[in-house]
Amino acid sequence: MRPTVRIFLLAVLMAGAPLSHSQAADPLPSWNEGPAKKAIVSFVQKVTQPGKDYVRPEERIATFDNDGTLWVEQPLYFQFIFMLGQVKAAAPKHPEWKENPAFQAIEKNDYAALAAMGHKPVLELVAAANTGMSTEAYEKTVKTWIDTAKDPHFKKLYKDLTYRPMKELMAYLRANGFKTFIVSGGGVEFMRPWTEQAYGVPPEQVVGSSIVLKYEFADGKPVLIREPKIFFIDDKGGKPVGIQQFIGRRPIAAFGNSDGDQQMLEWTAARDGTSLMMLVHHDDAEREYAYDRQSKIGTLDKAWDEAMARGWTVISMKKDWNRIFGF
Amino acid sequence: MRPTVRIFLLAVLMAGAPLSHSQAADPLPSWNEGPAKKAIVSFVQKVTQPGKDYVRPEERIATFDNDGTLWVEQPLYFQFIFMLGQVKAAAPKHPEWKENPAFQAIEKNDYAALAAMGHKPVLELVAAANTGMSTEAYEKTVKTWIDTAKDPHFKKLYKDLTYRPMKELMAYLRANGFKTFIVSGGGVEFMRPWTEQAYGVPPEQVVGSSIVLKYEFADGKPVLIREPKIFFIDDKGGKPVGIQQFIGRRPIAAFGNSDGDQQMLEWTAARDGTSLMMLVHHDDAEREYAYDRQSKIGTLDKAWDEAMARGWTVISMKKDWNRIFGF
Repeated sequence: MRPTVRIFLLAVLMAGAPLSHSQAADPLPSWNEGPAKKAIVSFVQKVTQPGKDYVRPEERIATFDNDGTLWVEQPLYFQFIFMLGQVKAAAPKHPEWKENPAFQAIEKNDYAALAAMGHKPVLELVAAANTGMSTEAYEKTVKTWIDTAKDPHFKKLYKDLTYRPMKELMAYLRANGFKTFIVSGGGVEFMRPWTEQAYGVPPEQVVGSSIVLKYEFADGKPVLIREPKIFFIDDKGGKPVGIQQFIGRRPIAAFGNSDGDQQMLEWTAARDGTSLMMLVHHDDAEREYAYDRQSKIGTLDKAWDEAMARGWTVISMKKDWNRIFGF
Repeated sequence: MRPTVRIFLLAVLMAGAPLSHSQAADPLPSWNEGPAKKAIVSFVQKVTQPGKDYVRPEERIATFDNDGTLWVEQPLYFQFIFMLGQVKAAAPKHPEWKENPAFQAIEKNDYAALAAMGHKPVLELVAAANTGMSTEAYEKTVKTWIDTAKDPHFKKLYKDLTYRPMKELMAYLRANGFKTFIVSGGGVEFMRPWTEQAYGVPPEQVVGSSIVLKYEFADGKPVLIREPKIFFIDDKGGKPVGIQQFIGRRPIAAFGNSDGDQQMLEWTAARDGTSLMMLVHHDDAEREYAYDRQSKIGTLDKAWDEAMARGWTVISMKKDWNRIFGF
């Protein structure tokens, strides 16, 4: 064979050849070298390479909490900010709300007054403004909000406040045959319209809290109407339940950041065989927020103690991440 | 370039080249040439080829009913036969059942007596025998049953009574970028242990009816306990609801066989853009069973009328399938 032909053939063959690990670019560039990154890479190698810890691709299920694990959750869950916005938007249809102290506080963004009156009057308004419409209409509202609404602290779109290291981690797991799921206390109909674009997680891999839907006809067309009634709460003990009801397989890796994720990590840890449990610790007041045991949002208290007792890996945002956001 | 080298290069290139449609083996060999097969192939071509009906792969969701659509459902849903078996198996722990007329009828397989006493006493026994254990223990019981239990009419394992043409159809859709889901009135924990092997549908793509699960600890290990309480009924109007709650995308193709599937097909038909709705008609008394409007199991009455009115495709098992089973 003439040398030019041989080189050409070699090029054809090389084009399809995968890079070996050492040749490949670092799949986790936003992660500093340290125990967290090491735990991830070592786990992935163990379950993908032949040996006693090998897990076949079909069983490589990884579950991620959303608020505080994949994106910011302070000073208030972004979904709650969206829902309060829906209360304001619905006000013209509810003139009676003008006399309602909870509505007055929402209109003035008076969170102190809201906190003082307790959950009930606020949640009643939130439920009224976020139910009664079709799932399609609600999805459009979520899409518009997520494409335009800005966080006043970072002065960025909320959807840009996702954690770059966690997105790298999800992509790295998928590149190694994992199926990545979101398992969040947040509402499933609030997340699904944008998780595919933000995280590469399609709607059918998003598990969350949900309300009852009702199938009916409107103008000769079938619609699903959002009823003001809880269907499922995907938090704490509800997370393993949600995993079983909606996924039907136990994860081999689970990622969270708060006491709401503790049972999901316990459930993952209790599988037969190796597993990876990680908690994101918000300890970076400079670049994001610092909070744990005392915080009302994203409380990390009992889950922290269990992580320490059982050797789950805690991710320090300050030490383990060399950058937090994509911007 | 020398001719031998040119031929070698051509072979290298061809090895990776997909076969064109006319070159490929028929992906639906159990289907006779006719309107049903034509409808399937024409739909798949429309949504996968550039043009106004193109659907990107992510949106190619196909949903299949299970009982009567993917496997036999006569003379009684196989799941019900399994559950009655569980009642017999649990009897030693329930000496009080000996006096129970419903239990006596189950023990004697006296279906006439059971029918005469109505659902309630039977369902109470079925619930008692199929709840209270962990999801893992129940899964093991289902696996053992499905691997060993035989249908007395066909003298075959129940799991071999799946329809070969429908399995070819599922594989054909997947080869064209579709994600195939089961959306069944049957219990999700009865189906998931075997649908991957039988249909190539993994647990996380099985939607069904379910009971409430409770997260608790037993001997220091977390377990999910099956509670005797309904969580979700995935039938009739519950099917579009289940699709939205568990999948979160509207199907572009839906397959059923009874009135329980009518709303799933309506929901699919009402999407913007092209869609495929098909009903399996059990009209082959010789090779399987013949039943429709009058049958108590798998009633096909209202859905038949709607199919006729809207031009949904009815699959005649007798005319459209040249073979029914894999054996």
